[in-house]
Amino acid sequence: MRPKIYLFGDSITEQSFADGGWGASLTNHFSRTADVVLRGYSGYNTRWALKVMEKVFPVAAGGGAPLAVTVFFGANDASLPDRSSGFQHVPLDEYKLNLLAIVAFLKKQWPSTRIILIAPPPIDEDARLLYPYVDNPSGLPERTNEAAGRYAQECVAVAAECGVPAINLCEKMQQLPGWKKAYLCDGLHLTQSGNKFVFGEVIKRLSEEQISLETLPADLPLISELDTNDPLKSFEKI
Amino acid sequence: MRPKIYLFGDSITEQSFADGGWGASLTNHFSRTADVVLRGYSGYNTRWALKVMEKVFPVAAGGGAPLAVTVFFGANDASLPDRSSGFQHVPLDEYKLNLLAIVAFLKKQWPSTRIILIAPPPIDEDARLLYPYVDNPSGLPERTNEAAGRYAQECVAVAAECGVPAINLCEKMQQLPGWKKAYLCDGLHLTQSGNKFVFGEVIKRLSEEQISLETLPADLPLISELDTNDPLKSFEKI
Repeated sequence: MRPKIYLFGDSITEQSFADGGWGASLTNHFSRTADVVLRGYSGYNTRWALKVMEKVFPVAAGGGAPLAVTVFFGANDASLPDRSSGFQHVPLDEYKLNLLAIVAFLKKQWPSTRIILIAPPPIDEDARLLYPYVDNPSGLPERTNEAAGRYAQECVAVAAECGVPAINLCEKMQQLPGWKKAYLCDGLHLTQSGNKFVFGEVIKRLSEEQISLETLPADLPLISELDTNDPLKSFEKI
Repeated sequence: MRPKIYLFGDSITEQSFADGGWGASLTNHFSRTADVVLRGYSGYNTRWALKVMEKVFPVAAGGGAPLAVTVFFGANDASLPDRSSGFQHVPLDEYKLNLLAIVAFLKKQWPSTRIILIAPPPIDEDARLLYPYVDNPSGLPERTNEAAGRYAQECVAVAAECGVPAINLCEKMQQLPGWKKAYLCDGLHLTQSGNKFVFGEVIKRLSEEQISLETLPADLPLISELDTNDPLKSFEKI
């Protein structure tokens, strides 16, 4: 049985298998070593994530403890309460408690599983006005970069409190000049470059947690390892 | 528990989560309904596939019978025996018996699971000389389009004998003028267009087997179904 890596999050996770997506890239990277399992739920915030965790990660699921779970929420929590996506808003202090509860749930269920928290990406507010999720005649973006930054910082603080690694996407992405167009396709979701960035960061954190192609055994003999004069020999001992 | 769709095959399956790959596209398509599980083994032919089936599809695997399994072998079996990839060659009559055995194994293990046979793609022989897998000073391609065509026909015949659907990729791809460059990146593996073609064909066959977004329930409430005035209501009844 191959070990599993779960991707738990919102639309940025759910869409991670579109062309060049970070989830697809992870699957490709671990194509012979681990199963990447998509558990992305578009629009979800940590409040709703917490409501569904027992369904998403049932104790009775086969295969034992996964290698790792990425937890990638905050973009929806950070929607401003009085704007067009206010129904997705979660106050910052509740966001913190919810994230703590999500990590606690996973740690209790699978003590050996590595958890990686991914903070929300930055926001291009002008682009959000061009691509509203719901009708938004107000002229005000439903998310701001300032709010995203605060939720991202809280996410990183929760990770430190729990002793798990975090990726502060919001901060890291803004280090690139032109990040708004380079990394974001609608001011919120990822371009292919944005996806590659996330993929690179996740691979790095996994590697730091000793989850890499160097540490994981390949599933079944690799073609490069076969004796071309007697290939069946390699299959006798599997 | 989400149902599973297994992708079992050679490198054209193993590489199906690279950018724009057909496996990634399937995962994206079924992002809230089914788990797509990658079981691609580069270089494998049906002889080796048969040797590893019990490992690839353990009876004890959790989750019960998968919805579907794609079986996509033949490109390596069709390597010519006296050329540079001869160690991968499997005679046509054995290819037939092996494919029958693979289908029989799956049918015995999971009678309700839909099996889709995918025949190998056509071969661009000139391109194969430019991208040999092993050193090939002979000036002769290790695969020919004629041989690929015979193995593809046999694959389709096996599918008919077993009463399961088949995709004759070899034949279908050649219907497009310019198929050699449009669909193949090295005379054998798929370009992004080739991947889209395979994705489209697989989705179509799955749909004919009643496996589609119309028939599969979504995993957990969709954001579009939530009452924006009382979103938590939708999570009470999950």
